[in-house]
Amino acid sequence: MSDLSLALAHAVNAPRLHQTLDELAQFGARDDGGVNRPALSADDLAARAWLLERATALGCTVFTDACANLFIRREGQQDLPPVLTGSHIDTQPTGGRYDGCFGVMAGLECLAALHDLQAETLRPIELAVWMNEEGTRYSPGAMGSSAFVAPERLPAYLQSVDSDGISLAAAIAEHSRAFPQLPVRERIAVHAFVELHIEQGPVLEQAGLAVGVVSGIQGVRWKQLRCLGSPAHAGTTPMAVRRDAMKLAIDCVAAIEALAAQLSTPEDLRLTFGRWQVLPNAINTIAGEVVFSVDFRHWDDAVLAAFDARLAAALPAHCSAEALFTHAAVAFDAPVVEAIASACAALQQPSMPLRSGAFHDAMYLAEHCPTGMIFVPSRDGISHNPNEFTEPRDLEAGTRVLAHTLLALANQP
Amino acid sequence: MSDLSLALAHAVNAPRLHQTLDELAQFGARDDGGVNRPALSADDLAARAWLLERATALGCTVFTDACANLFIRREGQQDLPPVLTGSHIDTQPTGGRYDGCFGVMAGLECLAALHDLQAETLRPIELAVWMNEEGTRYSPGAMGSSAFVAPERLPAYLQSVDSDGISLAAAIAEHSRAFPQLPVRERIAVHAFVELHIEQGPVLEQAGLAVGVVSGIQGVRWKQLRCLGSPAHAGTTPMAVRRDAMKLAIDCVAAIEALAAQLSTPEDLRLTFGRWQVLPNAINTIAGEVVFSVDFRHWDDAVLAAFDARLAAALPAHCSAEALFTHAAVAFDAPVVEAIASACAALQQPSMPLRSGAFHDAMYLAEHCPTGMIFVPSRDGISHNPNEFTEPRDLEAGTRVLAHTLLALANQP
Repeated sequence: MSDLSLALAHAVNAPRLHQTLDELAQFGARDDGGVNRPALSADDLAARAWLLERATALGCTVFTDACANLFIRREGQQDLPPVLTGSHIDTQPTGGRYDGCFGVMAGLECLAALHDLQAETLRPIELAVWMNEEGTRYSPGAMGSSAFVAPERLPAYLQSVDSDGISLAAAIAEHSRAFPQLPVRERIAVHAFVELHIEQGPVLEQAGLAVGVVSGIQGVRWKQLRCLGSPAHAGTTPMAVRRDAMKLAIDCVAAIEALAAQLSTPEDLRLTFGRWQVLPNAINTIAGEVVFSVDFRHWDDAVLAAFDARLAAALPAHCSAEALFTHAAVAFDAPVVEAIASACAALQQPSMPLRSGAFHDAMYLAEHCPTGMIFVPSRDGISHNPNEFTEPRDLEAGTRVLAHTLLALANQP
Repeated sequence: MSDLSLALAHAVNAPRLHQTLDELAQFGARDDGGVNRPALSADDLAARAWLLERATALGCTVFTDACANLFIRREGQQDLPPVLTGSHIDTQPTGGRYDGCFGVMAGLECLAALHDLQAETLRPIELAVWMNEEGTRYSPGAMGSSAFVAPERLPAYLQSVDSDGISLAAAIAEHSRAFPQLPVRERIAVHAFVELHIEQGPVLEQAGLAVGVVSGIQGVRWKQLRCLGSPAHAGTTPMAVRRDAMKLAIDCVAAIEALAAQLSTPEDLRLTFGRWQVLPNAINTIAGEVVFSVDFRHWDDAVLAAFDARLAAALPAHCSAEALFTHAAVAFDAPVVEAIASACAALQQPSMPLRSGAFHDAMYLAEHCPTGMIFVPSRDGISHNPNEFTEPRDLEAGTRVLAHTLLALANQP
């Protein structure tokens, strides 16, 4: 079995992998080398049609579901819950060629390599294409994977409307008309899910490593801070009698940084003050109100809970915090993470453990089945950008690790 | 002579003063009790017509000039350069009843009190109404007083266009058609200019004093600071490798505050960071660029020059400063300031010396003739707001000090 995993990893066909990535990038290609392919857009439907042809040529069956996810299924020796891999092929409006797409094309390459070897696996292997991960056409993001694991969320999603007034329900109906041949499947039991993705951060590149074994996804707190000052004339108001909302906001930042330093090591912390609104926002008027965002992430839910509990008391007077968004930390399944690490070891592929700072479909899949992720580097940490780039040899390394892992999991009884 | 100054101060008719302030506030009255009277608007022309009737009834002659300023002249015994008082009657769009208007109505009350007493003065006294001080219909502000003292500035001002596309040249032509009877006068020599104005700050109110003797106007530096970070994902980018433009901006604020503390006592300083732009201004993206304004004011030009000279070296890396606007400090004429202080003493009117933090027409007049200002309190320091308010007894006290000062100056040989 280990021999077959190795054989499959070595059967990964690098030119074919890069070729399919290139072909996928033509659907919604931008002049600057990037990709603009909104979920269920005409470009997305064309890319799906192209992918279905590929899947059929590999002897796979394709299913869809009520949220327009795709499942490209290669049967196993037994009708056991399948091993899933996959990601998404929708992009940001100024997106790159790799975010999501690489995970799907790498999964396709694994199916092609299995086909080349005419290999059989105990369990079926399925390649999932999750709908609307980016969340730019319809909000929120990762709708497809979220609705797959918790179908009760779908009715609310279907009412989401894009900027042209087209509901998700209408877009999914259009998808059904475009692909009438696809059976619509309900949620199924899944043996394991493994998502291969670009890191979208600088850690692997700086470590000089091609592969990251992802142990989990950081939990998140988004807060909105509001600081109330007294708007007044910048020239006539002595410093001693001012209540400057911008100075209050800067004091808030210092207080939140101090709280974060009590709760976390710098290595484990992500703390960002990214969105600011200042009123009246005039050169010669002391700010009367400043509203800004706090993005606090950590892998440990206890730290996130302590941040929630202690934030209000840490703030200066005239400042308050409101919760905007919260998501628990996700710890991936230890045996799946171990299968990925074992694949690296078997392939003599240097790797490191790391945590995902971004959300992925795997965050939702982890609610439903044993889940893990594999990362490859992002040059300069850049993502959601036409300049998104990963070295071809790193793409190949990640795909080989995925192939080894899938085969090992698919042969688990 | 001193007896006549006192007699004039006591001839100030408080009910008449408040009545004329009320009447002026009807032109462009807002539902919220404030006033919206743009320079040379229909409401402003109606207010000017009302004022001209008043002036004529007091036996005064009225002149205008190429920038639509008005000069209400009461002749003296000799044809010497006159003593000028006055301010402006244009308002902010959400303006109050006192900013500018009080100085003009108090000057009118002085002329009326002189008329009541049938008093003669050695020099003529003129009440000036300066055009477009607020700068909201046409930019920049204080055009009328600026063009009076330096007519070479007028051609550029005439090309200024309001939000309806009407040039200042066209608005002044309309003013000429509305008041064809007014002689158009060139710049004249002026013996002294005294402007009475609300403080627009909290200092007099907090000191419990009705009158401030203004020694000068703070100089100003407006700078635009630009901090360049590396935009990156808030979840995936470790703290150690970030270059967060908002953190750089907060460091800049601290550096500028430290520089200011080296250059000035807190009492003499005005330092404001009022306008902020953050890019891309998203919750989950580290700021790539922050641009913000610095408003630095001081009465001492040497301090302002040191701020200019030392700012760049004080800033962190990746941060730069650009000059947006500069104005030298103005020190008012010592004998005029002394005449105001003497008036307070003669009237047993408690007062305090202070500096103006805001710009006024007196800033430009000081380029042309000996100049001084008198302040009365602003409740809660509020101005440019319908809630602008000064206690009637304080308006009366300021007007009496103005009357005493004008008479003393007008009888100087």
